[in-house]
Amino acid sequence: MIVDCALYRDGQRSEGIHSGGAQHWRELREMVDADGDFVWIGMFEPDAEEIHEVAEVFGLHPLAVEDAVLAHQRPKLERFDGMVFLVLKTLWYVDETDAVETGEIAMFVGEDFVVTVRHGQGNELHTAREELESTRKVLEHGPGGVLYAVIDRVVDEYLAVVDELVVDVDEIEASVFSTERTNDSTRIYVLKRELAEVRRAVLPLREPVFRLSSGSVPAVPESATPFFRDVADHLARAAETVDSLDALLSTAFDAHLAQISVQQNDDMRKISAGAALIVVPTLIAGIYGMNFKHMPELAWAYGYPYALLLMGAAAGGLWFWFKRSGWL
Amino acid sequence: MIVDCALYRDGQRSEGIHSGGAQHWRELREMVDADGDFVWIGMFEPDAEEIHEVAEVFGLHPLAVEDAVLAHQRPKLERFDGMVFLVLKTLWYVDETDAVETGEIAMFVGEDFVVTVRHGQGNELHTAREELESTRKVLEHGPGGVLYAVIDRVVDEYLAVVDELVVDVDEIEASVFSTERTNDSTRIYVLKRELAEVRRAVLPLREPVFRLSSGSVPAVPESATPFFRDVADHLARAAETVDSLDALLSTAFDAHLAQISVQQNDDMRKISAGAALIVVPTLIAGIYGMNFKHMPELAWAYGYPYALLLMGAAAGGLWFWFKRSGWL
Amino acid sequence: MIVDCALYRDGQRSEGIHSGGAQHWRELREMVDADGDFVWIGMFEPDAEEIHEVAEVFGLHPLAVEDAVLAHQRPKLERFDGMVFLVLKTLWYVDETDAVETGEIAMFVGEDFVVTVRHGQGNELHTAREELESTRKVLEHGPGGVLYAVIDRVVDEYLAVVDELVVDVDEIEASVFSTERTNDSTRIYVLKRELAEVRRAVLPLREPVFRLSSGSVPAVPESATPFFRDVADHLARAAETVDSLDALLSTAFDAHLAQISVQQNDDMRKISAGAALIVVPTLIAGIYGMNFKHMPELAWAYGYPYALLLMGAAAGGLWFWFKRSGWL
Amino acid sequence: MIVDCALYRDGQRSEGIHSGGAQHWRELREMVDADGDFVWIGMFEPDAEEIHEVAEVFGLHPLAVEDAVLAHQRPKLERFDGMVFLVLKTLWYVDETDAVETGEIAMFVGEDFVVTVRHGQGNELHTAREELESTRKVLEHGPGGVLYAVIDRVVDEYLAVVDELVVDVDEIEASVFSTERTNDSTRIYVLKRELAEVRRAVLPLREPVFRLSSGSVPAVPESATPFFRDVADHLARAAETVDSLDALLSTAFDAHLAQISVQQNDDMRKISAGAALIVVPTLIAGIYGMNFKHMPELAWAYGYPYALLLMGAAAGGLWFWFKRSGWL
Amino acid sequence: MIVDCALYRDGQRSEGIHSGGAQHWRELREMVDADGDFVWIGMFEPDAEEIHEVAEVFGLHPLAVEDAVLAHQRPKLERFDGMVFLVLKTLWYVDETDAVETGEIAMFVGEDFVVTVRHGQGNELHTAREELESTRKVLEHGPGGVLYAVIDRVVDEYLAVVDELVVDVDEIEASVFSTERTNDSTRIYVLKRELAEVRRAVLPLREPVFRLSSGSVPAVPESATPFFRDVADHLARAAETVDSLDALLSTAFDAHLAQISVQQNDDMRKISAGAALIVVPTLIAGIYGMNFKHMPELAWAYGYPYALLLMGAAAGGLWFWFKRSGWL
Repeated sequence: MIVDCALYRDGQRSEGIHSGGAQHWRELREMVDADGDFVWIGMFEPDAEEIHEVAEVFGLHPLAVEDAVLAHQRPKLERFDGMVFLVLKTLWYVDETDAVETGEIAMFVGEDFVVTVRHGQGNELHTAREELESTRKVLEHGPGGVLYAVIDRVVDEYLAVVDELVVDVDEIEASVFSTERTNDSTRIYVLKRELAEVRRAVLPLREPVFRLSSGSVPAVPESATPFFRDVADHLARAAETVDSLDALLSTAFDAHLAQISVQQNDDMRKISAGAALIVVPTLIAGIYGMNFKHMPELAWAYGYPYALLLMGAAAGGLWFWFKRSGWL
Repeated sequence: MIVDCALYRDGQRSEGIHSGGAQHWRELREMVDADGDFVWIGMFEPDAEEIHEVAEVFGLHPLAVEDAVLAHQRPKLERFDGMVFLVLKTLWYVDETDAVETGEIAMFVGEDFVVTVRHGQGNELHTAREELESTRKVLEHGPGGVLYAVIDRVVDEYLAVVDELVVDVDEIEASVFSTERTNDSTRIYVLKRELAEVRRAVLPLREPVFRLSSGSVPAVPESATPFFRDVADHLARAAETVDSLDALLSTAFDAHLAQISVQQNDDMRKISAGAALIVVPTLIAGIYGMNFKHMPELAWAYGYPYALLLMGAAAGGLWFWFKRSGWL
Repeated sequence: MIVDCALYRDGQRSEGIHSGGAQHWRELREMVDADGDFVWIGMFEPDAEEIHEVAEVFGLHPLAVEDAVLAHQRPKLERFDGMVFLVLKTLWYVDETDAVETGEIAMFVGEDFVVTVRHGQGNELHTAREELESTRKVLEHGPGGVLYAVIDRVVDEYLAVVDELVVDVDEIEASVFSTERTNDSTRIYVLKRELAEVRRAVLPLREPVFRLSSGSVPAVPESATPFFRDVADHLARAAETVDSLDALLSTAFDAHLAQISVQQNDDMRKISAGAALIVVPTLIAGIYGMNFKHMPELAWAYGYPYALLLMGAAAGGLWFWFKRSGWL
Repeated sequence: MIVDCALYRDGQRSEGIHSGGAQHWRELREMVDADGDFVWIGMFEPDAEEIHEVAEVFGLHPLAVEDAVLAHQRPKLERFDGMVFLVLKTLWYVDETDAVETGEIAMFVGEDFVVTVRHGQGNELHTAREELESTRKVLEHGPGGVLYAVIDRVVDEYLAVVDELVVDVDEIEASVFSTERTNDSTRIYVLKRELAEVRRAVLPLREPVFRLSSGSVPAVPESATPFFRDVADHLARAAETVDSLDALLSTAFDAHLAQISVQQNDDMRKISAGAALIVVPTLIAGIYGMNFKHMPELAWAYGYPYALLLMGAAAGGLWFWFKRSGWL
Repeated sequence: MIVDCALYRDGQRSEGIHSGGAQHWRELREMVDADGDFVWIGMFEPDAEEIHEVAEVFGLHPLAVEDAVLAHQRPKLERFDGMVFLVLKTLWYVDETDAVETGEIAMFVGEDFVVTVRHGQGNELHTAREELESTRKVLEHGPGGVLYAVIDRVVDEYLAVVDELVVDVDEIEASVFSTERTNDSTRIYVLKRELAEVRRAVLPLREPVFRLSSGSVPAVPESATPFFRDVADHLARAAETVDSLDALLSTAFDAHLAQISVQQNDDMRKISAGAALIVVPTLIAGIYGMNFKHMPELAWAYGYPYALLLMGAAAGGLWFWFKRSGWL
């Protein structure tokens, strides 16, 4: 689907053509006549025909086009003659399910055009485009500016997702160390799986962003490198937090195991103490159930209440003793 | 065994000779007279004589020939004067046994010939050859094109195997976190062993493919490097997924251990509660089994049913109490 | 908030202006007329206006200014034309809560100015400035001297924090290996979390300090590099100690788990021995509770005390036996 | 002890002198008069005098001589002017004890001589020398050929040892996952220790062999580098297998722990079920042991067999129930 | 404290002045008039005055002097103009307490002087000096020779300490796998802590020694580099052994955990079997304690002994059965 498409002149949107089709793309491209002007085509899960029309007009490399259509690629930055091809993973946090979902954005950045291909629901680029159009400043940097704006937006979303995960880890931590009987291993597992998801998005992106920030990519002017260094820094922060959360979760899991063991021990001692409260009176009952002829208590008028009292006293005494020594 | 053998001219199969023998190979090789034309000999677990005839005609290095015959080599790319020698591990997933099996392909790629030596059942090259012959495009790149086609096919199979393993891990995950009493350690172990198998195929191949994609290998023309970069990318994806599955399995295993502990604790509490249901009535029976002369209940007409009721009530009361506190 | 601000000439404070405002900053800067003279402005959690006035006068890069205002950055050293921007994490140990807290210092170091922006309560720079003013020696090195003094102070604080953590680890160690029943997993977890905090401050700072010590940063004269090498050494020491504490804690945690297991085993044996002391007499009572007609003991005058003695003897014998074999 | 010693001309043994002594060595060395001819002296745990005589004649470096005499060195390749000094660990598998034993070979390789010093029983060089003498081909490469032949033989032995360890790991694996009650931790520990032994031989040898295969060592002619690359490949295979076995053993150990836990749980449930089979009839006996006057069953002629049947039925019922729910 | 001080000419001690004081040092230094001659001052935990006098005369850098006085530095090699500053950790094993203790040696090595500053009791340099003076050979290399001699001695002590730790690990291993009930976690922990101590001494020293052995340090002549390579090799051996011991201890700890679990299981089964021996006779006693009118055995003359025999037979039968199935 073609989501949006426009020609940008001097950092301002000047023409928007929605219809698409190879002919339109060609006309649109020919309208570009000044340095820094460019066409930006935004697609959402395009079908083969749509993308091939665009590919033909802008000379996109077939391998890159295939990657953009198929999705499920690793984040990467490839240079084909006169063009940069970037694949990004997008992440967003779904509050209802406490889950991290992933999508993908592929970008073709040439001298006079940007083609963005988005997969998955998150990180809509529409609002990003509107923001860009209203500030103008970044758009004046041409296609490189759009490249920056999209990466910056995606990476900011990473940080937002990571912040949500920090909250999740805090909750798990509270649950593990609560005195309640909780089974946290499932939640820890799920969270570790999500951290792995985030890591798969963040780590492979560091190298492309580093290359962009080092000024070795032709689409990025020297003056723009501090901005990409800033993004690289955000990525490093996200990566560090994810690593640190992962290590924390491992420790929390170990602590959870220790808590289970401690609880097992506590339960065992409670059970044993409880058993003693019944077994000792049973012994007393057994004694007075013996059939000896000469057992003075048996004939005693208060023998029965005495025996019951003895049982109660024994149980009570044990109860106190276990209570004091922390077994009950 | 010689599986197939043909001369390719302008990307088309032009002569196929099955009989083999040193003389035939020599004649075949002499037919090559234009740039990009080449002979492709395909062998399956050849015996010493077969391969030595070929080695003699095409000048294959003895060490490489030895490696190709023996199999069980590590994936590697060696350059002998004017020739590239590549060893690949092949992987395939056997559905019936949920197992990953491995084979090996050794390739000798010279200017005017390709010799492929296959071991193990998987990754038949016959269909690969037919596909190549029908598309023609890759064959026009000469021996380097065949090299790419074979690696690409093998690596695609890696991704297919990895996808199957992802399914296996998902199944184990479901089993670990199910409430049923499962013993998943064996399956986790087997899967970890298979992941190690895949890793042994994938990791050592990355360096050869990287060298191929960097254009430093003479058999690969500059224009073909993006294709090898694509393969390198697939390899990286396979390696990342394998690492991530391995980490997930470790976490799943830990969770499995925690589940066992939790279950042990649950069982212990259930058993204790169950024991209490019997031990408390036993105490009551013991009490009314005492031989005191003065026990009013004993003479009471409804003493016996009353005692039974008392036992039942005690057991019932405990049952409720344990149920409410989650012990039963 | 502007905390302090002064002009330094020949290593001595010569003018201090507290009022602030863009006009004042401009005037102050214009007073700098000799090499090595500089203005030092100290801010504490400044609002947007305050910092932008300063940024305008001294030409601070907008991205750096944004980082300095927002805080929660990673330690880093950035070079913008003619200016060095450094972000440091500050750490301090709060005795009351045994907790490590973190703050942040951002520094802009130009040829004729230093701007420090501090976040969080710890590592007040006021006393650092006073010390510097009284010794004069470092101030003569100009802005580079201030840069060194601040980093040195912050890193010394790291070492102090690490020393406190060493004490905490020693305490945990003592607790784990005490014979008392302790639940150390929570404390180990908290301490591991704090070590991670320290690591996040220390590790990313190593690279900036290394660059400063290698003489490749323009603000630092060649003669100052041994001082930065000294700081790098302190950082390395802090990092090594943190790593080593973390490994020790992991081992201590494992030992804690082992202690729990050993204790569980001890408890189980104690409980079983205790149970035997009751169950064996119960068996004896059961035997004399049998209704056989011909049981000589029953008719015996001393039968009852004999039975009680037998029970006591059995219990006592078991007690001795369990005591000797270490079960009680 | 001087084991063997000979002069090699054109790849053929021409003179062998066993007696030794500095004078003999000198004469022997002087006989070398053509390129590629060389003296090969083989020693087994030589005493100080023996080696110093040789060292003097061939100009061996004192530090290297010391290393060769003392043994227990790390594998390494040192270059002293005009001479290469190599230390290798030898490994062999003793079937009777399932143990890996280690020895050491030190080699001095000059332009016209090879001195080998062997420690430990394994990897006898005598047969290696005989093989070399019978094939002649490698000997024509001069001292470098001998160097290759010895390393190749030692590394082949590594692979043989590793193959034995693979078998051992398979056995442990079978034992861990068998349903029998096995205590595999000792065997796993011992095997891990042996793997560490192998690793200590293999890993440090990789760098020397890499240097030999890169052609930067003067004793090795360019044409010999593919052979050393082959050895490097074997070493890499050994190292990979060892790493992979070590990881497998760790996983097997974890699985072993899980099996113990599962077994503990199974045992606990079996024990509890067994206890129920006794405790429930005891309760029934207790009920009919009560002394109520009005208990109709007591007077019933078939009361006793009825009670016994009731007990049997209760036990039988429980037995079925536990059997069905997998507790017995 | 000044421990010893002397002027060395042509590798021989020629003048020794104990008194110290800045004036004496100056005179002593002026006596040096030939290449290779040098002054060697040995200090033990010097006070501020002592070291500053020396620092002044020999031009030691203030930062290095501070490090030498304070101790607790990381091992490192620093170059200040015309001078090398080396910090070494010393280790020694105290037999009585099975503990590793640490000290420190700081060395200033200039063209015509060596100043050694020692902290802690171990690794006395006095005997080292005497050995050097008696052999003369190393002293002829000037200050570089002393540098080598001291490092060599310290590193030899590392190897001695590591050998002691190997013995300790062997003991722990024997204890873990003994059938006795041992609590090895404390000893393993302590040993791991000591290994960390050794690692902190060994690892950071590798880089300085590597630099010394690569000939890039001016105080070390080219001809001395093989000696430093030898030291580097010893260091590598110590580091490898420490790593390998650490890994072994981790495995031993895991095995210890497994042993505890196995023992717990054994104990549980023993306890259960023991309980059965009592509970089954109790059931029999309960049966004959029932009050049925028609119980033939009760009236039987040998009923009582028969019941006792039955109990004994039941217990005996169970005992055999449990014995055979390994539960007792």
